[in-house]
Amino acid sequence: MAISTQIESSIANSSMIRKMFEEGDRRRQLYGEENVFDLSIGNPIFEPPAEVQKSLEKLIQSDEKGTHRYMPNSGYSKTRQYIANMLNDETGLPFGENEIIMTAGAGGALNVLFKTLLNPDDEVIVFKPYFLEYNAYVGNYGGKICAVKTKEDFQLDFEALEEKISAKTKVVLINSPNNPTGVIYSENELTQLGQLLRQKSEEYGQPISLISDEPYRRIVYEAPAPSIFPHYENAIVATSYSKDLAMPGERIGYIAISPKHQDHELLCGGAVLSLRILGFVNAPALMQRMLPLVGDACVDLEPYRINRDLLYNHLLKVGFSCVKPAGAFYFFPKSPIEDDLTFIEAAQQLNLLMVPGSGFGMPGYFRISFCFETEMIKRSLPVFTELARQYHLVD
Amino acid sequence: MAISTQIESSIANSSMIRKMFEEGDRRRQLYGEENVFDLSIGNPIFEPPAEVQKSLEKLIQSDEKGTHRYMPNSGYSKTRQYIANMLNDETGLPFGENEIIMTAGAGGALNVLFKTLLNPDDEVIVFKPYFLEYNAYVGNYGGKICAVKTKEDFQLDFEALEEKISAKTKVVLINSPNNPTGVIYSENELTQLGQLLRQKSEEYGQPISLISDEPYRRIVYEAPAPSIFPHYENAIVATSYSKDLAMPGERIGYIAISPKHQDHELLCGGAVLSLRILGFVNAPALMQRMLPLVGDACVDLEPYRINRDLLYNHLLKVGFSCVKPAGAFYFFPKSPIEDDLTFIEAAQQLNLLMVPGSGFGMPGYFRISFCFETEMIKRSLPVFTELARQYHLVD
Repeated sequence: MAISTQIESSIANSSMIRKMFEEGDRRRQLYGEENVFDLSIGNPIFEPPAEVQKSLEKLIQSDEKGTHRYMPNSGYSKTRQYIANMLNDETGLPFGENEIIMTAGAGGALNVLFKTLLNPDDEVIVFKPYFLEYNAYVGNYGGKICAVKTKEDFQLDFEALEEKISAKTKVVLINSPNNPTGVIYSENELTQLGQLLRQKSEEYGQPISLISDEPYRRIVYEAPAPSIFPHYENAIVATSYSKDLAMPGERIGYIAISPKHQDHELLCGGAVLSLRILGFVNAPALMQRMLPLVGDACVDLEPYRINRDLLYNHLLKVGFSCVKPAGAFYFFPKSPIEDDLTFIEAAQQLNLLMVPGSGFGMPGYFRISFCFETEMIKRSLPVFTELARQYHLVD
Repeated sequence: MAISTQIESSIANSSMIRKMFEEGDRRRQLYGEENVFDLSIGNPIFEPPAEVQKSLEKLIQSDEKGTHRYMPNSGYSKTRQYIANMLNDETGLPFGENEIIMTAGAGGALNVLFKTLLNPDDEVIVFKPYFLEYNAYVGNYGGKICAVKTKEDFQLDFEALEEKISAKTKVVLINSPNNPTGVIYSENELTQLGQLLRQKSEEYGQPISLISDEPYRRIVYEAPAPSIFPHYENAIVATSYSKDLAMPGERIGYIAISPKHQDHELLCGGAVLSLRILGFVNAPALMQRMLPLVGDACVDLEPYRINRDLLYNHLLKVGFSCVKPAGAFYFFPKSPIEDDLTFIEAAQQLNLLMVPGSGFGMPGYFRISFCFETEMIKRSLPVFTELARQYHLVD
């Protein structure tokens, strides 16, 4: 066998999702694109804000030389300083360009961080439900995922968390606004989290790094999502512009390491080295140069909010039980039956495609993505009604 | 300590190169940019061919929707089919889009391949001198590098190679045109290599994959560099457009897996999975879309050829011993003294910056990069004369 045993077994494990995709394709061919409601993936249908095209045009038409060459592995000084200034303004902490490392999206940022931080068997704590790709990201470097339950409303359960922290805990990883639940951790919760991690870092005599995976940070509907930096010293952000600039295909994001992190200098140097030796080398040059020109442009959140409200009201009306998302573009309702896979298959029969909670380490639930045209969301509502009828949630 | 012991020791090991860079910076500040001859790195000074800017402008100005969204992890079907067709034409083998996986450059391609192929302790054979970053790429997945000597002219030494192949050999990795020597392996050598690997794969009952890392494939001065595909079934190409389109900062390349590879289907699926879970997700969208528009455009090789001839004639004239590079943009001459680090330091004293052979696993040599303005190369010639005088190579 040419391939590694780990990749071979991962291929086998990913067959469920592949089967789902194939079933979706089969149905689209059979029933027509417009009759299949694919609410399964988080690939925003909307275009990037106008500033993106304008800035890219300007950069391409410029006759500046050397703009496609290598730059320092961590990225252009100008781009990193721009992000550092933004973080300074936001947090009051002395971020400089050294604390910013440009990456190929948040997926790249997380891999770079785990490569930098983890020794084999070190543990990374995540909160259920969670993006299962974290398992692979952590496993790539011999680390172990330790998944902690959350409260009924998906907020942090500090008692459950404290029980799981041990001498092996190297990282606590949060994702707020959250995929798949849409919850946002408040200032109060982050303060409490910071206190617990500070206490545990002291107790075990080594810093527990808090990583915030926050590509949805600016996709919010009620109030801004708070920054982790003011709440804990050993804090690191891994993020991307995939969602707020609606350009996930371009792979641009960054790592920001708190200037107050206990091992701050080693971490900055280590992350640049990891970026290089994992073969990323640097984040794509053109997109790096675009960022300072684009400023704080963001996709229009109004269509997302309309979709959210439409779908939320309808889900409640037909009897589903669901937390209202304060950010991101997903719902994570309870499955009307324990077996979420069977439920998702029943929805598939109605040409409604969603992801089972098992795909987020939390059976008994399911995820609906709503980053699509409102018109499509509207047309999907009767299908939710029909599904609710099948499970006797509504007459 | 927050960071992993592996990254900590890698940081310590990379201090030599960092010191060199710092010394270069110090000298530039002290003596002026124009008085320091930095022939140490392979970051081409020339601009991409005109087709690049033209194609990017066209793509940015187009009002096509959805061009920055996620696409399949392996890349746009159109781009992959374009590359597959090119490989079909070149090799006569039935490449299709499934055999092509778009990557973030060759560094990304190699990491994806090693992740896909290697079990811990599997061996990857490389040929001295070689790009030391291979050590890290292979080590990331628990593999071991096994470095085989080459002949006096840096061509393959099949006897030495055969001795090193064992049941642990999973991959043989070649780089032709070669960094740092500039040698190209001929059709005859590739045929012989294919025969040996075929025989050894049978002997050990598992396929040995031949990976060709070939970003310099089109940077050639005498004859084209032959393809590996007609010479061996279990062949894989890892390449990038960094050198021939002079855009290393944009991170665009690909993996091509021979349709004749014994584990061809598993490998294609495994590589796509590895690309995803290493956090690359996909190669940058815009650059993928550019490739079919750019066609076979290539940087002008004439300045490289002029630099090569100038420098080669001068090196011989002042008494250095050197193989004439048939491709890439490096010389790898013998150091006049055994201790290449001391020699490189002496050159530094003359404001001439180069890389010691030790940086390529081959002490007693040094690397000169010539991807710079001819004017700078010309001004560096007297410094080579002075250096030769110091070592009594010339009067």
